[in-house]
Amino acid sequence: MSVFTTVTPEQARAWLRNYSIGSLVELKGILSGIENTNYFLTTAHGRYVLTLFEKLTPNELPFYLNLMAHLSNHGVPSPKPIANLQNEFLGELNGKPAAIVTCLPGQPVMDPGPDHCALVGEQLADMHLSGQSFKQHLDNLRCANWWTRVAPEIYPFLSQDDAQLLQSEIEFQAAVSREGLPRGPVHADLFRDNVLFDGDVVGGFIDFYFACVDSLIYDVAITVNDWCANPDATLDAERCEAMLGAYATVRSFTDQERALWPAMLRAGALRFWVSRLYDFHLPRPGELTHAHDPEPFRRLLQSHRNGGADASFLPG
Amino acid sequence: MSVFTTVTPEQARAWLRNYSIGSLVELKGILSGIENTNYFLTTAHGRYVLTLFEKLTPNELPFYLNLMAHLSNHGVPSPKPIANLQNEFLGELNGKPAAIVTCLPGQPVMDPGPDHCALVGEQLADMHLSGQSFKQHLDNLRCANWWTRVAPEIYPFLSQDDAQLLQSEIEFQAAVSREGLPRGPVHADLFRDNVLFDGDVVGGFIDFYFACVDSLIYDVAITVNDWCANPDATLDAERCEAMLGAYATVRSFTDQERALWPAMLRAGALRFWVSRLYDFHLPRPGELTHAHDPEPFRRLLQSHRNGGADASFLPG
Repeated sequence: MSVFTTVTPEQARAWLRNYSIGSLVELKGILSGIENTNYFLTTAHGRYVLTLFEKLTPNELPFYLNLMAHLSNHGVPSPKPIANLQNEFLGELNGKPAAIVTCLPGQPVMDPGPDHCALVGEQLADMHLSGQSFKQHLDNLRCANWWTRVAPEIYPFLSQDDAQLLQSEIEFQAAVSREGLPRGPVHADLFRDNVLFDGDVVGGFIDFYFACVDSLIYDVAITVNDWCANPDATLDAERCEAMLGAYATVRSFTDQERALWPAMLRAGALRFWVSRLYDFHLPRPGELTHAHDPEPFRRLLQSHRNGGADASFLPG
Repeated sequence: MSVFTTVTPEQARAWLRNYSIGSLVELKGILSGIENTNYFLTTAHGRYVLTLFEKLTPNELPFYLNLMAHLSNHGVPSPKPIANLQNEFLGELNGKPAAIVTCLPGQPVMDPGPDHCALVGEQLADMHLSGQSFKQHLDNLRCANWWTRVAPEIYPFLSQDDAQLLQSEIEFQAAVSREGLPRGPVHADLFRDNVLFDGDVVGGFIDFYFACVDSLIYDVAITVNDWCANPDATLDAERCEAMLGAYATVRSFTDQERALWPAMLRAGALRFWVSRLYDFHLPRPGELTHAHDPEPFRRLLQSHRNGGADASFLPG
């Protein structure tokens, strides 16, 4: 459960006096999420999410909040931060940095078909294009430097085969140059549980707290790895085609992106294999949530290395 | 009807390529409105309003668009301008300045009760408070200077009594000092047809194209004059109390505002009496809409001068 810092209705009521969204109707803790304290905040004017940031600092938070505001200004359905009477998105509540964002409509679809994949692909391309005019920068904290740094802590927990696989992939990725790839703000974690469907449209892309500036195609690969993978760790050709085809109607892929596509799929699988291994074997003290299983990403990585990525290709 | 500049679906489709709101589904002219060309613009991602500005210039438009964006950032349900890929709210279409804003939910309530008035009063105060951090400026173009300037053009069309009433009120208002009154961005035209109700909440304040920086209490007076007036030109005490009481829960009135309240109600009635007289007797060439009847505002002004404003008072 993810209410690390308790907020009482009285505290919320007092805090809301610094906003223009009406008085408190209901405050309800949200049980999912692993990094922040989240509440559904219902006021006389609507439904919002109140987040108290437990680990992210006021150095990183403006990037996330301003990016969400920027995307929302462009019509991308991301949560929209609400400014307070000082015209700031970020405030402080109970000693923690805190923000209110809009509560977006819809539900995740955990068993998506090609139509869902097409909608997400198109919207992802819209996000990438409209992000091009966003001028703030934040490095990807889960990049090659990061996995190279944490791998030695993980090796002792792995079988010899897995350790070899991990080391080999890290070496492969170190030789891949991303120079020249189109870059910009990316979501970097656009899994199925971070997309809300409101009937036939995307109601929202949520949870921007891994967003950063990186190669756009890497973001596409992370998304395809989650939305288009079969249980046997192969990629589903039909869903890949739907997602990548719809993406390309908004933003054309470059030749270099096409050439690096299999490597990007592998990088995406590696990144989540490593983070899940790390959380599984080296949980942080006081970590309350159960860690995600790393195994599907090991199998996906192995499958991509064996040519499984051939089931997907970027349209020309 | 208010499609002065035609936009074809092909033109809209091409224009939308510079936005991130999906491809065109439907384009439909909107028949109300007297200053601009408006279309309902439905895309794969949602419903918007496309406006081509026929008279407002790129000098004034940033104030309106940035104010709407600012208020929307604060959770005030104003239309939200959509930025294009150059990160601009204002573009050009068929030779006219043009913008896309969100289409807000709900319908006007033309026969409001005290509950509606309370909701509008509270939201108006929220708008006034959150507007305080908006830093752009635009003078009220329908101010005392304006009515003093246009009155001589109107006198020839009036009965002697009406001309005397107009002149007398203009002289009275000239002696009223607004110095020291709280100021900020105001809507300045928040009539019933410019508020959408979505069930039990205010779905939107719309039509910000008379917005300007002026005394907040003058905006309240304009709003009360429309929402709380009876057919006999008296003010309804119950609706006034609901609207002003709800307003005061968000922003307290000052002593000076209380002292000037009757004068502000008179100023609000004068402003709309004059503009309606002007549009009625001196229609602009090519004016396509039928002018609103000036008479209710003459009667309201007369009633206020006779003490009708006593039915309303600002809570302490």
